[in-house]
Amino acid sequence: MNSQIPRNSNEHTTERSVFFISDGTAITAETLGHAVLSQFPLAFTSYTLPFVTTEARAQEIKQKIDTIYQETQKRPLVFYSIISPSVKKIITESSGFCQDIVQTLVAPIQQEVGLEPEPKLNRTHGLSLQNINQYDARIAAIEYTLAHDDGISLRNLDQAQVILIGVSRCGKTPTSLYLAMQFGIQAANYPFTADDMDNLKLPAALRPYTHKLFGLTISPERLAAIREERRENSRYASLRQCRIEIAEVEALFRQNKINYLNTTNYSVEEISAKVIDTMGLQRRVF
Amino acid sequence: MNSQIPRNSNEHTTERSVFFISDGTAITAETLGHAVLSQFPLAFTSYTLPFVTTEARAQEIKQKIDTIYQETQKRPLVFYSIISPSVKKIITESSGFCQDIVQTLVAPIQQEVGLEPEPKLNRTHGLSLQNINQYDARIAAIEYTLAHDDGISLRNLDQAQVILIGVSRCGKTPTSLYLAMQFGIQAANYPFTADDMDNLKLPAALRPYTHKLFGLTISPERLAAIREERRENSRYASLRQCRIEIAEVEALFRQNKINYLNTTNYSVEEISAKVIDTMGLQRRVF
Repeated sequence: MNSQIPRNSNEHTTERSVFFISDGTAITAETLGHAVLSQFPLAFTSYTLPFVTTEARAQEIKQKIDTIYQETQKRPLVFYSIISPSVKKIITESSGFCQDIVQTLVAPIQQEVGLEPEPKLNRTHGLSLQNINQYDARIAAIEYTLAHDDGISLRNLDQAQVILIGVSRCGKTPTSLYLAMQFGIQAANYPFTADDMDNLKLPAALRPYTHKLFGLTISPERLAAIREERRENSRYASLRQCRIEIAEVEALFRQNKINYLNTTNYSVEEISAKVIDTMGLQRRVF
Repeated sequence: MNSQIPRNSNEHTTERSVFFISDGTAITAETLGHAVLSQFPLAFTSYTLPFVTTEARAQEIKQKIDTIYQETQKRPLVFYSIISPSVKKIITESSGFCQDIVQTLVAPIQQEVGLEPEPKLNRTHGLSLQNINQYDARIAAIEYTLAHDDGISLRNLDQAQVILIGVSRCGKTPTSLYLAMQFGIQAANYPFTADDMDNLKLPAALRPYTHKLFGLTISPERLAAIREERRENSRYASLRQCRIEIAEVEALFRQNKINYLNTTNYSVEEISAKVIDTMGLQRRVF
């Protein structure tokens, strides 16, 4: 374990310091904490501290929190999720403003369901005997998706749950990988290239699977900017070429009644969730 | 948008129904909700409903919740995050037991920082002008990682932030992709094959980057089971071969003082977080 307390890289100004502390990966604490903080017009410097399972480590972190408080006279905000009572106690005795992200929701549920919670080491993203088969399915989905990235293989498309189609650099590969990684979905993808544009049709290999197709499109301006990064001053990156390709592909989507989404203003998470929602796919949780 | 209310695939028995509802991707509601529910000895059937931004959609969901309550006489548990007051009101007026996952934590923070929250459409994973460069860095990391998967390219290793090494099927590829996708880390990976085992040494191409190397290992039994799925009854999948490879590779890690982790009981999230923690890498949040 890294014995330092590394600062995250995204934030600069420091009106407030924020700590995300967990006995697990801290991914949930970090994500939820960011969702909460995004509601305030506040600059912050953040520290994410996973795998905090020992009193010694908790003491180091408490000291850091206390030092920042003494120096700034502002209590650091602390989002934490720790099961061990002795480790938790050290954090909550710091001078930070501490909120337990999971237990805050557990207590009301306890009332409602009339059951005692059985706190377990925080393994939101953990692996257990119960979920190992499911976990293997996730790895299989990643593998399938890699093997069917960018039209590499058009075999076994019957096993795809969704096939993303679109021009080069519109977001197919990151979205396919996210669908596999986060949701265990076998996602193939197929690119249309400049050469396809003269007489754009659905390739024969895809035609039996029209019901699995989902189109991605993007604004020509954003596409040109992305392609310019890759091949400067090329025809490939020219706005004119991007406009032609996007117009052709969108026409193809409409003619074939293929659901499609303009990805320009969406993140990989959002595109993926919209694909799942539109296609009626099932989400797994890992 | 899919007008049905699809049930998630993992859960079967139904002591309680659970809804994860969001005006965004619902990924945070789902993850946090699962963390909360995992503390109770309770079987549940879950429904994840993203992009709930209209009153009409909220009404459909309210009806589903009410119907389940009438049929089971047990209030469905509802974890939600919705900004629009009119949409939110419809959900909270359902017969579900409703908890707002973000606002529960926002209210105390409001007190502490003395600022009014400025609720925004829930875009935890959203894309904005402010973060578009950062987002491009994420896509670049995914691209780098794909280009340096499985030792495909040993060029530009100076640009890798970490290089995962280990035998075939110990988790290098999923971990590399997760590091890139979730944290924007440029992660290369390099496999040792059966042919390397006679006189296992660090390949010359990796030697300048010893400080970036992180080893993955795994129990021979689990490795054999994974490989058996891939190539039945092969030497590659035999327990004997797996034992030899693991012993050799672990010896190499120790001789070269390379940090390493046994992945047998860890998920991709956990392995990734441990790599970051051990190597002192910075986490980005997207």
